[in-house]
Amino acid sequence: MSGYPDVMDKLVSLCKRRGFIFQSSEIYGGTGSVWDYGPLGVELKKNIKDFWWNAMVRSRDDIEGLDAAILMHPRTWEASGHVAGFTDPLVDCKQCKARFRADKMDPKKLEANVCPNCGNKGTLTEPRLFNLMFKTHMGALEESSSIVYLRPETAQGIFVNFLNVQQSMRQKVPFGIAQIGKAFRNEITPGNFIFRTREFEQMEMQFFVEPGTDMEWFEQWKAKRMQWHFDLGLSPDRLKFHQHDAGELAHYARAAFDVTFDFGGTLGDQEIEGIHNRGDFDLSQHQQYSGKKLEYFDQPNNKRYVPYVIETSVGADRVTLATLVNAYREETVEGESEGRVVLGLKHSIAPIKAAIFPLTKKDGQPEMANRIVDDLRSAFAVDYDETGSIGKRYRRQDEVGTPFCVTVDGQSTGDQTVTVRDRDTLAQDRVDVSQLKGYLAAKLVG
Amino acid sequence: MSGYPDVMDKLVSLCKRRGFIFQSSEIYGGTGSVWDYGPLGVELKKNIKDFWWNAMVRSRDDIEGLDAAILMHPRTWEASGHVAGFTDPLVDCKQCKARFRADKMDPKKLEANVCPNCGNKGTLTEPRLFNLMFKTHMGALEESSSIVYLRPETAQGIFVNFLNVQQSMRQKVPFGIAQIGKAFRNEITPGNFIFRTREFEQMEMQFFVEPGTDMEWFEQWKAKRMQWHFDLGLSPDRLKFHQHDAGELAHYARAAFDVTFDFGGTLGDQEIEGIHNRGDFDLSQHQQYSGKKLEYFDQPNNKRYVPYVIETSVGADRVTLATLVNAYREETVEGESEGRVVLGLKHSIAPIKAAIFPLTKKDGQPEMANRIVDDLRSAFAVDYDETGSIGKRYRRQDEVGTPFCVTVDGQSTGDQTVTVRDRDTLAQDRVDVSQLKGYLAAKLVG
Repeated sequence: MSGYPDVMDKLVSLCKRRGFIFQSSEIYGGTGSVWDYGPLGVELKKNIKDFWWNAMVRSRDDIEGLDAAILMHPRTWEASGHVAGFTDPLVDCKQCKARFRADKMDPKKLEANVCPNCGNKGTLTEPRLFNLMFKTHMGALEESSSIVYLRPETAQGIFVNFLNVQQSMRQKVPFGIAQIGKAFRNEITPGNFIFRTREFEQMEMQFFVEPGTDMEWFEQWKAKRMQWHFDLGLSPDRLKFHQHDAGELAHYARAAFDVTFDFGGTLGDQEIEGIHNRGDFDLSQHQQYSGKKLEYFDQPNNKRYVPYVIETSVGADRVTLATLVNAYREETVEGESEGRVVLGLKHSIAPIKAAIFPLTKKDGQPEMANRIVDDLRSAFAVDYDETGSIGKRYRRQDEVGTPFCVTVDGQSTGDQTVTVRDRDTLAQDRVDVSQLKGYLAAKLVG
Repeated sequence: MSGYPDVMDKLVSLCKRRGFIFQSSEIYGGTGSVWDYGPLGVELKKNIKDFWWNAMVRSRDDIEGLDAAILMHPRTWEASGHVAGFTDPLVDCKQCKARFRADKMDPKKLEANVCPNCGNKGTLTEPRLFNLMFKTHMGALEESSSIVYLRPETAQGIFVNFLNVQQSMRQKVPFGIAQIGKAFRNEITPGNFIFRTREFEQMEMQFFVEPGTDMEWFEQWKAKRMQWHFDLGLSPDRLKFHQHDAGELAHYARAAFDVTFDFGGTLGDQEIEGIHNRGDFDLSQHQQYSGKKLEYFDQPNNKRYVPYVIETSVGADRVTLATLVNAYREETVEGESEGRVVLGLKHSIAPIKAAIFPLTKKDGQPEMANRIVDDLRSAFAVDYDETGSIGKRYRRQDEVGTPFCVTVDGQSTGDQTVTVRDRDTLAQDRVDVSQLKGYLAAKLVG
């Protein structure tokens, strides 16, 4: 149990009501654990993805971007081990037809063969392995040779393109390849809103290094990635490393740490990123299965080797959820009877940077407010709102995390100044309209 | 046959060699008509997608963004007509096992029952309907109730969210919803590089209007969308409208125009965008299948109606290919024996905006060049290159469409000036390093 409150139900409701996240195909009763991003959710997630892309690709010489397809050659998943090993052990109750993951069941009930649902004894089947990859057929024939899978991770698209990227971009080891993209897992027990879903988006980077230098790079990436979560605005108090011990370590991993975030309530600390030293497992497997050499030739030192891989793998949806949980707060405001809900999102990821209000719908105020909107829009995402009292409009913007509210009032049309109200401090500055863009730009950088 | 040359083979080769586009899972012999975007291809496509998103969503009050999931409730595709009608008629040759689309076969051969492949007579089966949707199963059971499809278009994700978006964003008709996302079609005859693929990306916008105002909006969107392609830098000479006549018109469409681009060679004019007046077909169908009202209530006029939809649907991969075809040129350069290949991409979508070269690897030139890289990187995508002759480095950047090359030479370390060479005019300016960022920013806007 976390020391932080459980805000999940409130967030699910806020996200639907304010256009962040809707249940997929809601009018048809929903699709199992799949979610759609609404107008504000798209912008929030896009800002987070751009923040990652800038940090990992655009600001570095030694990392290249990639966007590999979701549908890959099926041999990829034999080489990676997913066809044989990406499975959950399932147990069925022959009586009540309930289904369970054997590895998540109470071991005593499993051993005694007692159904946790209907309570009958001796009705459970032996555990059988269920593969989590979604399977489909390419081409017109439904035969085994045409089977393709929806990728369960983006990483393999990077491994099979290792030489294509290295050679076309004339990169030298150490260097990395980074990718943002959808992946799919037919989870038996998804849940917790967008935390564990069947369709999700990953932000993965594989860094190729000379064997022997791998643990040094592993430590560097651990530190860099934790710093990234701080920079995103997640509270350092809620972030931790969790080291995989020998029992948890995947067969391909030489070392693994999770970055966990404390989601509050019973969910508590959960993985939002994994940092892995995968050794040469993946490239060696693809060499073996494809018959193609995936070696790097280090010309100055006249050495040839299969690089080791340090992987950093973030769930884009999980990080988005973490930013929402982290940002959500309920406050009382001095001198006001009603409290307020605030999403204290970091400015750079807030979906709307500034909202512009005319105090009244007359006296040229809406026209002036709209001119300001037109001027600011080329620089920031802005919103115009003329409906309801100013207090109500402030509350609406607080609830979606808008850092600044700009109000055009009776004085504005005369002296060409507006008030700018800060979401967090509630302080109001009077700013000259001609200075407004610069004023906001300076504040939004922080 | 187009008046423009066929540059497709040259482009496929350039795109692989220079890191724009690779065949998917190439080391395994490729995945049928699926492609991966390499480091420069990702940036090009991302720039095009951002250009669309800015034009369609961020710069407008009346269009909201959305990112609906790929996996939707299967009833969606019954309502949309895809389960029953999204089919190709296929004919098999029982002799040679070749497979054909009946609607693309020579009607005489079909009627005479002569296989176009092996030439045998009477060996063709009757045409049977093959659904183009990829099918998979969600949950642990492979039974009909668990079938889900990979969406064949993004549009339906918008229709089922119509009320969620309208209500959460307090929009009034007319307004639109826009989305960029992957879609999948199990095409029997894909091809022409990234023109027709089984996995592709769409940029779709559905604009909801009051019935009766639809043709007026249709004309507005036709004009706006053509202008967007001009603004993207596609040559107006290669762009045309193609009107669907009664025979081509889809059952749901009241009017439809394609924007076509002349890809040159035998491919010639091909659709890159569709603009459709879909009437109330989609919302009415979803009302009927879901039992949920999808009406809009026009409060000021006390009217309730199902809006009509004007759709603009662009293929992101097709437009990316069009920008490459449009930009590709081979030139002779005065006073030089070797010609050059140039991608004359519009500055705003070029993957690299400026490349920085030290003339030699000594005398502090690499250090100065790297300081310039670090300074420019916060503003633009830049590349550093110190390998080979300056002429060779220019050619490399020309071939990937980099608008500006900045050279640090012997004079630079002394007087703090550099030369800036323009990709298209080949003119070289001497620019003060302290002015460089502003100089480039001003040129790149154009």
